[in-house]
Amino acid sequence: MTTQKATIVYTLTDEAPALATYSLLPIVRTFTSVAGIDVTLSDISLAARILAAFPERLSEEQRVVDGLVELGELTQDPHANIIKLPNISASVPQLRACVAELQSQGYDIPDFPEEPKTAEEKAIRERYSKILGSAVNPVLRQGNSDRRAPAAVKAFARKYPHSMGQWSKASRSHADYMNGGDFFSSEQSVTMNKAQTVRIEFVNKAGQAELKKELPLEAGEVLDSMYMSSKALCDFFEGTLQDAKESGVMWSLHVKATMMKVSHPIVFGHAVKVFYREVFEKYGELFDELGVNPNNGLSSVYDKIKALPQSTQEEIERAIHDCYENRPELAMVDSVKGITNLHIPSDVIVDASMPAMIRTSGQMWGRDGKPKDAKAVMPESTYARIYQEMINFCKTNGAFDPRTMGSVPNVGLMAMKAEEYGSHDKTFEQTEDGTMRVVAADGTVLMQHEVEKGDIWRACQTKDAAIRDWVKLAVTRARNSSTPAVFWLDEERAHDNELRKKVEAYLQEHDLNGLDIRVMSYNEAIRFSMERMKRGQDTISVTGNVLRDYLTDLFPIMELGTSAKMLSIVPMLAGGGMYETGAGGSAPKHVQQLLEENHLRWDSLGEFLALAVSLEELGIKDGNARAKILAKCLDKATELLLDNGKSPSRKAGELDNRGSHFYLSLYWARELAAQTDDAELAAHFAPLAQALSEKEAQIVAELNSVQGQPATELKGYYHFEPAVVEKVMRPSATLNALLGAVNG
Amino acid sequence: MTTQKATIVYTLTDEAPALATYSLLPIVRTFTSVAGIDVTLSDISLAARILAAFPERLSEEQRVVDGLVELGELTQDPHANIIKLPNISASVPQLRACVAELQSQGYDIPDFPEEPKTAEEKAIRERYSKILGSAVNPVLRQGNSDRRAPAAVKAFARKYPHSMGQWSKASRSHADYMNGGDFFSSEQSVTMNKAQTVRIEFVNKAGQAELKKELPLEAGEVLDSMYMSSKALCDFFEGTLQDAKESGVMWSLHVKATMMKVSHPIVFGHAVKVFYREVFEKYGELFDELGVNPNNGLSSVYDKIKALPQSTQEEIERAIHDCYENRPELAMVDSVKGITNLHIPSDVIVDASMPAMIRTSGQMWGRDGKPKDAKAVMPESTYARIYQEMINFCKTNGAFDPRTMGSVPNVGLMAMKAEEYGSHDKTFEQTEDGTMRVVAADGTVLMQHEVEKGDIWRACQTKDAAIRDWVKLAVTRARNSSTPAVFWLDEERAHDNELRKKVEAYLQEHDLNGLDIRVMSYNEAIRFSMERMKRGQDTISVTGNVLRDYLTDLFPIMELGTSAKMLSIVPMLAGGGMYETGAGGSAPKHVQQLLEENHLRWDSLGEFLALAVSLEELGIKDGNARAKILAKCLDKATELLLDNGKSPSRKAGELDNRGSHFYLSLYWARELAAQTDDAELAAHFAPLAQALSEKEAQIVAELNSVQGQPATELKGYYHFEPAVVEKVMRPSATLNALLGAVNG
Repeated sequence: MTTQKATIVYTLTDEAPALATYSLLPIVRTFTSVAGIDVTLSDISLAARILAAFPERLSEEQRVVDGLVELGELTQDPHANIIKLPNISASVPQLRACVAELQSQGYDIPDFPEEPKTAEEKAIRERYSKILGSAVNPVLRQGNSDRRAPAAVKAFARKYPHSMGQWSKASRSHADYMNGGDFFSSEQSVTMNKAQTVRIEFVNKAGQAELKKELPLEAGEVLDSMYMSSKALCDFFEGTLQDAKESGVMWSLHVKATMMKVSHPIVFGHAVKVFYREVFEKYGELFDELGVNPNNGLSSVYDKIKALPQSTQEEIERAIHDCYENRPELAMVDSVKGITNLHIPSDVIVDASMPAMIRTSGQMWGRDGKPKDAKAVMPESTYARIYQEMINFCKTNGAFDPRTMGSVPNVGLMAMKAEEYGSHDKTFEQTEDGTMRVVAADGTVLMQHEVEKGDIWRACQTKDAAIRDWVKLAVTRARNSSTPAVFWLDEERAHDNELRKKVEAYLQEHDLNGLDIRVMSYNEAIRFSMERMKRGQDTISVTGNVLRDYLTDLFPIMELGTSAKMLSIVPMLAGGGMYETGAGGSAPKHVQQLLEENHLRWDSLGEFLALAVSLEELGIKDGNARAKILAKCLDKATELLLDNGKSPSRKAGELDNRGSHFYLSLYWARELAAQTDDAELAAHFAPLAQALSEKEAQIVAELNSVQGQPATELKGYYHFEPAVVEKVMRPSATLNALLGAVNG
Repeated sequence: MTTQKATIVYTLTDEAPALATYSLLPIVRTFTSVAGIDVTLSDISLAARILAAFPERLSEEQRVVDGLVELGELTQDPHANIIKLPNISASVPQLRACVAELQSQGYDIPDFPEEPKTAEEKAIRERYSKILGSAVNPVLRQGNSDRRAPAAVKAFARKYPHSMGQWSKASRSHADYMNGGDFFSSEQSVTMNKAQTVRIEFVNKAGQAELKKELPLEAGEVLDSMYMSSKALCDFFEGTLQDAKESGVMWSLHVKATMMKVSHPIVFGHAVKVFYREVFEKYGELFDELGVNPNNGLSSVYDKIKALPQSTQEEIERAIHDCYENRPELAMVDSVKGITNLHIPSDVIVDASMPAMIRTSGQMWGRDGKPKDAKAVMPESTYARIYQEMINFCKTNGAFDPRTMGSVPNVGLMAMKAEEYGSHDKTFEQTEDGTMRVVAADGTVLMQHEVEKGDIWRACQTKDAAIRDWVKLAVTRARNSSTPAVFWLDEERAHDNELRKKVEAYLQEHDLNGLDIRVMSYNEAIRFSMERMKRGQDTISVTGNVLRDYLTDLFPIMELGTSAKMLSIVPMLAGGGMYETGAGGSAPKHVQQLLEENHLRWDSLGEFLALAVSLEELGIKDGNARAKILAKCLDKATELLLDNGKSPSRKAGELDNRGSHFYLSLYWARELAAQTDDAELAAHFAPLAQALSEKEAQIVAELNSVQGQPATELKGYYHFEPAVVEKVMRPSATLNALLGAVNG
């Protein structure tokens, strides 16, 4: 797929955002066509990706192009302009359901082989593995990350502040983390002075080396290695449990088992084994036989013991309950259902749960459904410290005030799979005592760690070109927004010290005149940013990949109550741009409500914002003045929409996603008609603006009247029937007719 | 008094340190005479100062020279070398007792007239007012302040760490302070561009101006003005009381009513009135009639109601007790006696009480005598924030570890009565609403504040020459100790911003090459210093006068368990030096023990340390090599004394102050005999070293055997009989003979 200068690629994804696209896209095209801009659709839904993986099993007309492959190629085109909506990061159950649905629709797709044995099964599994999990982002994110609160959103949040729990100076809540024995304290880092392939080896006590992985590295690439001691980890867990019990606070575990998908489930599993120590000591062998996996949480125990006689089950359940006697109260995920923090590793995700806790006066939910002070346990100290810093800040200064607080946009090092932490293919749980080492092509040992059985060792790579581009992006953002930028690089971290050298060097390649660019440790950086934030000032955080992930939830949730309203831009290394929308997932619950009540509460705000930036960028690159005007007017329309409360309601019978789109078109058309930069353009949209104004009541009535009863069957969940969805999503004949009339 | 080049002036003061002088000085003179150094005594005791004030009433032989006046003159001599021991800052009761004692000894001293009426009484009162309170330090402190933990003391503290309470991350303790309406938020500051006399005026609502004070100012002098709103203060107290009640922590007030002797008693009085609001509302008029002064604490209520009938007294006492129902638990000064934090304004002194609280796991003492988490209330936010910062630090990182922590020496702006806060003659409690303003000689209004009745307004002056010298001292200390120095100057404080300009300018007058000198806000500065301290690194704090006072307790108490062991030097503007010893007061309880058990537990460590620096300085200035050797050997002797546990015991029959002096002379003589820089000197001390070694057991026995029974009557407390004291303090004939033989 090649792109013309005036093409925006709009992704068709899954669930709610995909449904919303059927309503929004016709509106968008109505507006963009007048500037000579094509908006083309690229289907990267889970279903499409599965179908594209098995062309040989499909008929000619069943076959689909692989949208993701095409987009991957497009990312290398300097003219790429992609609007990326949220998609499903498929878990195995989701993948299975999608396969089943496609099969039922007559597609000869193979079953997902969980434990592939034959060569054929393995080949199938191989194809599916490229679809599973977070498969889209790594392909598309061919650049660093630029995330910020759009002006309209920030202004709205200041005018209509979200709820923010007050903080007591006497709060007992705090973050707790290891003071040694963790990845932070063992981190080593080297920068390659030339391209070469290094070996990751394990040397056992007998001196025998085993190759774990070969890594081809580029010149200037940074390679880190580190490990977490499982003994230190378990001692730490035990210590925190005793401390929480004594000091009377709840105990709450916060990890990121989804993103750190190899290391964090192990960490989580140790927490489960330590908390329920007596159960695991008593029933350890039985659990092994049953295939209990503590890394999957206590739910794994409950699942697996179902195979046992009722009396044994009850005995184990009693033993579990006995554990609670000697342990601190556990934070609950769902107190009604009795689901604790240790039930499933993916229930509590640190980057979402910690901001939520901080917004809730530093409290988590107790067994009785009441919020209580808690010890938030995050074993890895590297990033956990920033949460303690923020907790201290809130205790000292009170809760943040969304009406007055400044903003902390982020420039994140993400390009070329900048791994930092979370490099799954280079993470190893040790099976025996020995030495893990990284050996250069010439045999030099670059890094090594003495490890014990059970320790988690890992290596991470970061490419020089990605770092250089990240520095450039930081300078650009500081310049364009006249905002101080702080590189969060910790003097006590080996990786960060390697990066500091590069940052200092690469900064010299830019005109820094008049810019305020600093390098600070994490504690200093967050404190500096919070002090400014408290005074209403903005500060750009320039961070590695993990802090990018954490901070683009933490600060937006404080400022806006959600991270879904952030503008998320990936200026690609090749020169193009990707504009991501809504970090809030693909909202399966919204689909359910649509099916039941024909009300779609999905908020397309992210799409509006992304489209405006996409148009603006296109205007600048192609010298397309009309694109710029469209962008400017769209931003104004979005601001009006927020101000006038025309975002979707949660309740059937009230304005939903479709009604919100109507108001966007109304305001956008009015702004275009009113602008004076391009008279022809104004004249073009004046009739639409007038007609939409006149028919406002009628259109809204048409849009809302369909609600309250089930929507037409969409003939699919993962792979629905487009014609049906189009009908459901465009129920106002009046609106459709007026839009259709614009371009003749 | 003129001073020869080789003269050290040793002050004779009061109580324990004065007694100790009778034992130590003969030893010191034995050692210094060989270097041609005279150690002369200057009597600045309270009694001597009173006698010196009334020469015309005394006989020729009763008259004494005014030691303080002489020393005041000496401070202007570049060769001044003064060792200043702790003296009595006389309160009115102490002054009265001293007068009565002198009268009983036959001195025709007039009574202290509390409410002088006649011209004669007023003249007498005028003379006494120069003796009352902190009268000595302002005369002698003709320079800035250099305080640090001597190497020997720091080494000893690392080896034998003092007890340090552990901190819980779940601690509820915190510092609370005003967020507006206090001195900090209203501060204004101007620098004089020329010498002139300014007027402080009050303008009432009718526009009439009243002159409050005329102030002659020098060119470059900094003048601040600020006020504390009494309404805001009372609202703040009420808010903190309710918050403490709700969150279940104790409430504890921390002010400095002694040093801030005009403003803080008023602040304290408001706290009493708010805490016991119902009592003061109900009995307000009665209290006024009785002359109850809440600024003197609840004790004033108890004192004054004694004049009432028993039943009324009981009624009021019940009303007081009823207040406790609706108020949080109050921190206790003495839980056994039921003395609370609000009983007397001088019981809880912030600079001593906050470090003690932080050392005690952040807890204060409750009604039941148990330590509990507390809200430490310090209304003035300016400096209170540093305590919250340290509390947060301890919650996050755990208690400081005296075995490994670094040191924070201080360079304090103190010269020429640098006032900063605490300028009593320019502090006014407003009696009506209106405007307080500072008017220049040409009529320009330099600063003004709208104030209300009850508000506390004040102005403070700081002289340019003092600031310039302070900057120089900071640079000198940074250079001599190869330690980073941080100027604590807050960007949000008007006064500090004036100082920042001067500091930046005056730093340029010095060679800063290789020095690490920074300027930081208070929060940044303390955090930076603590982060370094945690890692064992030292950081010089360069501060204003109040932070000097606070920090030279705070850090030493964390590091050493006491501030009394600090080296406290005043390098005088005129070029001389004053060496202050022991910040621990003049220890009246020690005198009592001596009288009862003939055991003096006073620790002369401060004198040893001061003498060493005094000798070293003299050695450098006069090129007196022997003085330098004496200094070096004295420091080694002190280190040995600490290491060998030869400091005074608290218990009669064990080594006391006198025994400790013996060991000092033994070790000092040995070091001098062993040194090889000056053979003659070594030869001179070799016999003494040998004799003292040989007679060690005998001398210690002689010194300890006198203990356990009352000492001989000293014939005076404030003005004792020197010959008697000398006998009491030098009970070892063997030691006296050996010392006497050295120079004979």
